[in-house]
Amino acid sequence: MSVHLIREIENLKKQILALGADVESALHKAVNAIVRKDWALAQTVIDADTEIDRGEVDIEEECLKILALYQPVAIDLRFIIAVLKINNDLERIGDLAVNIAEQVQFLGATAPRPFPFDYEGMAGKAQVMLKKSLDALVNLDAGLARQVCASDDEVDAMYRDLIGLVKNEIRQNPDQFDVLLTLLMVSRQLERIADHATNIAEDVIYMIDGHIVRHSPERVN
Amino acid sequence: MSVHLIREIENLKKQILALGADVESALHKAVNAIVRKDWALAQTVIDADTEIDRGEVDIEEECLKILALYQPVAIDLRFIIAVLKINNDLERIGDLAVNIAEQVQFLGATAPRPFPFDYEGMAGKAQVMLKKSLDALVNLDAGLARQVCASDDEVDAMYRDLIGLVKNEIRQNPDQFDVLLTLLMVSRQLERIADHATNIAEDVIYMIDGHIVRHSPERVN
Repeated sequence: MSVHLIREIENLKKQILALGADVESALHKAVNAIVRKDWALAQTVIDADTEIDRGEVDIEEECLKILALYQPVAIDLRFIIAVLKINNDLERIGDLAVNIAEQVQFLGATAPRPFPFDYEGMAGKAQVMLKKSLDALVNLDAGLARQVCASDDEVDAMYRDLIGLVKNEIRQNPDQFDVLLTLLMVSRQLERIADHATNIAEDVIYMIDGHIVRHSPERVN
Repeated sequence: MSVHLIREIENLKKQILALGADVESALHKAVNAIVRKDWALAQTVIDADTEIDRGEVDIEEECLKILALYQPVAIDLRFIIAVLKINNDLERIGDLAVNIAEQVQFLGATAPRPFPFDYEGMAGKAQVMLKKSLDALVNLDAGLARQVCASDDEVDAMYRDLIGLVKNEIRQNPDQFDVLLTLLMVSRQLERIADHATNIAEDVIYMIDGHIVRHSPERVN
């Protein structure tokens, strides 16, 4: 492998990690904005999304430039393709963080009646999945990536439980409809963020092991 | 360009179009299953998803093989990268069609009170967007792809209107909650399908024009 290609790949790694850090920060702020009903904080997430979008475009152009100029093969080719896909997932997580932040305006001034759902627990799980999937990418750690895949089922189950709880609660307290629907929508975004973190983890596994893991039974173990 | 590479690219085009046709069919059936409350039809959509998942994996492996063996450049490289991304969007539309089909079980036996929302109109728009985005890919038609991008705003607006309508309706008729929430969730899937069709259209434009269109102002014209 040429010195130039090594340097390009190192730079690309830095770029995707910087984008990952921006997306992690956006998600963290969006969840805090919901918890604290803090519209000013939500607005910073919405404003920062342009930067994330620009980062995604830059990384994609960088990948195409490297493919065209250096025609990498084997692990290097797999790395570039993985970055192209992870890049896409990160940009979408950024959009979902914006969706979460936007929900702050629908929360209303008063807290809803206490409600038997560990909402912050679900948010925390999605955040840990994103963090672990990026750590797995940096450290080429397939074991860590597999942990992320396993956590996805837990988040899915939490979301399914929540739908049932929200339905019951709205039936009993129809006046709480707005805030409960908002809670449901935020949780849906968290569930989708967990899906994207799982996509990232699967791409890391693919890059390391060289086989496609998604849709295969081992994915859910 | 070598004869072998030409042949590989032609085969890849056929493969992605075949997957597109399967996904179109799944979406069409899922929408019909909702309209007719037909659980048997919904089940065929759920069963067919394994085939779509397999198609996605095959196409991704094919792309990587072509990149490694032929090291294509310029338009050929852009075509392979576009296929890699469109492939991903098609697989996700397939998943969303499954989500729609699964909602049939929550529709209940009785029709809800007539409701001022053109639900089939929204489904029809999403289906046309998917069809046009695939036609744009086959015919390398950037003009058609731009039409798809423009339609996305219409679908987004329909979805926003629906949220307001459903909220009002549930307030007035809390006993209709289950079926109305189902309607809202199906529409959310349709809105996401429209987003994926837009991604496909943007990738077609990129492939033809060689610049990245998403996040840029022209995208919404």
